[in-house]
Amino acid sequence: MATKVSPLAPAAPPTLRPVAGVRLATAVSNTRYKGRPDLCLMAFSPGTQLAGVFTRSLCPSAPVDWCKAILAGKAAKARAVLVNAGNANAFTGKAGATAVRALAEAAAKALGCRARETLHASTGVIGVPLPHEALAGFLPALMRDLQADNWLAAARAIMTTDTYAKGASATAEIAGVPVTVTGIAKGSGMIAPDMATLLAFVATDAALPGAMLQALLRKGAEASFNAITVDGDTSTSDTLLLAATGQARHARITSAGDPKLRDFKRALAQVLTELALLVVQDGEGAQKLVTLDISGAASKAAARRIGLAVANSPLVKTAIAGADANWGRIVMAVGKAGEKADRDRLSIKIGGVEVAAKGAVVPGYDEAPVARHMQGREILIEIDVGVGSGKARVWTCDLTHGYIDINADYRS
Amino acid sequence: MATKVSPLAPAAPPTLRPVAGVRLATAVSNTRYKGRPDLCLMAFSPGTQLAGVFTRSLCPSAPVDWCKAILAGKAAKARAVLVNAGNANAFTGKAGATAVRALAEAAAKALGCRARETLHASTGVIGVPLPHEALAGFLPALMRDLQADNWLAAARAIMTTDTYAKGASATAEIAGVPVTVTGIAKGSGMIAPDMATLLAFVATDAALPGAMLQALLRKGAEASFNAITVDGDTSTSDTLLLAATGQARHARITSAGDPKLRDFKRALAQVLTELALLVVQDGEGAQKLVTLDISGAASKAAARRIGLAVANSPLVKTAIAGADANWGRIVMAVGKAGEKADRDRLSIKIGGVEVAAKGAVVPGYDEAPVARHMQGREILIEIDVGVGSGKARVWTCDLTHGYIDINADYRS
Repeated sequence: MATKVSPLAPAAPPTLRPVAGVRLATAVSNTRYKGRPDLCLMAFSPGTQLAGVFTRSLCPSAPVDWCKAILAGKAAKARAVLVNAGNANAFTGKAGATAVRALAEAAAKALGCRARETLHASTGVIGVPLPHEALAGFLPALMRDLQADNWLAAARAIMTTDTYAKGASATAEIAGVPVTVTGIAKGSGMIAPDMATLLAFVATDAALPGAMLQALLRKGAEASFNAITVDGDTSTSDTLLLAATGQARHARITSAGDPKLRDFKRALAQVLTELALLVVQDGEGAQKLVTLDISGAASKAAARRIGLAVANSPLVKTAIAGADANWGRIVMAVGKAGEKADRDRLSIKIGGVEVAAKGAVVPGYDEAPVARHMQGREILIEIDVGVGSGKARVWTCDLTHGYIDINADYRS
Repeated sequence: MATKVSPLAPAAPPTLRPVAGVRLATAVSNTRYKGRPDLCLMAFSPGTQLAGVFTRSLCPSAPVDWCKAILAGKAAKARAVLVNAGNANAFTGKAGATAVRALAEAAAKALGCRARETLHASTGVIGVPLPHEALAGFLPALMRDLQADNWLAAARAIMTTDTYAKGASATAEIAGVPVTVTGIAKGSGMIAPDMATLLAFVATDAALPGAMLQALLRKGAEASFNAITVDGDTSTSDTLLLAATGQARHARITSAGDPKLRDFKRALAQVLTELALLVVQDGEGAQKLVTLDISGAASKAAARRIGLAVANSPLVKTAIAGADANWGRIVMAVGKAGEKADRDRLSIKIGGVEVAAKGAVVPGYDEAPVARHMQGREILIEIDVGVGSGKARVWTCDLTHGYIDINADYRS
């Protein structure tokens, strides 16, 4: 297993602001990882509202089934999220569902709430029964250790192949009252089912009803977690939860379109985008962070699909790893996206320099400044597909020998 | 550029039977490659019928535009195919179309036919104008050198990053009359637009009308070229042509469903499948040939999509490179295919050994025989998704350091 910290890691760990109504604790369960925190409890004050976005995998893990059932179509209240790292409780048959239920009942007993007010997430190896009794045994200690300023410890406890802890905070005002948004995430491939599922837990003290929260989260996820890709693979366990404790005493908000929410939306988008980028920057083997700006598409959705087709192309990603300004491969990837594009109006900029326009390389194209840009850590590729006004931004990383090293290893 | 022959290459070059009515010649144009044949002319007897299947890329190359226009929706006659290796004539703007037309007119003059009876294919670097006048200058020499037994030389002349020449032959009877099917192909990534487009040219002396030929080719391609993937990328230039010279004097066939065609369909399928497998076995960096048999899907198309999702998963392909029987990644890839699958009925066999059944690892699973199978050159993975009776077979190769080496290199 690679343990070197990603060259794209931030210089320092994030400063994470506590959120009124949220306390966290971690424990060392020694179930798969030895001697490091691998269990995390987030406890919420009564009345906390919850929203969630999950993997679209048709073979989801047992805890994803549990959370989706609780959030199915309507607002939910939540008192806790329990997360374990090292075992995904995925593809574990009926034993998987039994394990989640047992953990939920144990957590409910510890917290004094209903089982369905406890959410669960697991990440790690697939196909191994979850030792739920052993994990439940740590609940009393977790309850005792709950602290409002344990966010960074929590970010560390949910890591698997991650090479650094991921978190982000922002503040905003709702009708003149300050609110906080803080979140943590883990994930280093878009997924590696035996290790690197994407999990993210975000909380705020804003007072927003669950249905509105769900709408805000879904929209926020589109431009952040749904706009990143490391290898195009989709986990059985991807989970993004947003809890609102309602401890901030701002004026009541009745519509997601209320202008008083504008600043909160900005803060939520900032936290979600920062977390998503931290995941890409920890992409398995990543040496470069790639930003793809697509414009001129038939729609926003078409622009995102074109961006993801380019971002997921092994040929584009290996060219970037080799610092090769190979715009021919970009044309290829645009062509395979299946979205409307006009070859004869297509234009491509790399590092701000126009490389191709109107379906051909620009006259007198000088590769030197583009080659210099390709040598850097942050690569910007702008593509105008020439058919409409749809825009989207997508992020990815390069495909390197490091990815093969990490993923072609025997499971230990 | 890697020049070592793929470890999956056949032991000997193929024996390619001449096809009555087809003659071939090659030339050394020295346009990109130096001192090796890189230009190939296939000439057909008058009355030859043509069918074609092309890349679905929305940014196709100029020669693909040319061929598609000729074959648009109806039967076409063909007198020649001219192929050059080293320059794809893709993303070359209006100059690209002008170059194809000029070459077609030159070929028509040399052959004494109409320009639209000459087909064109180009493979190689993208975005560089095709030196069509220089190439046209070789037509007199090509015409002089046409020979019926030049198939293997032709297979060599269309290579780019291919590490060996690819060809296949089969014979069949139509109403008691022997016919031959012979084809050549090139391609070593599913695509690498500056080098490794997929091209295949198949000919037969059967006497079949173009529309019927088109139906037979489309069906044949589904289970062969459309069932292989190296990296999931789609070329701007992929071209598969089937020519029928009609030199075999068998009874007239009026319907593609005629039982007299059964043996011919088998021979065509055999040649197409052999060619497709030769391409996968030359996959960039490939060390293992992977056969995926999908069953229990909602339909044949669903089974193929699930197979391709597994075959294109970087996590599955790197696990295979590492000889890791990582069935958890297979579950993940099935889940992301977007096709109906029942997690709790899913079963997986690797090398014929049941690994997972009914949504969980089999009781007492012994990894030893599976690990031995994973060490071999040919990997068999069988997946039953448990919802219907749709079946499909898909082939791919592993994802190795060799792929990164080849594709992360600077273009020279």
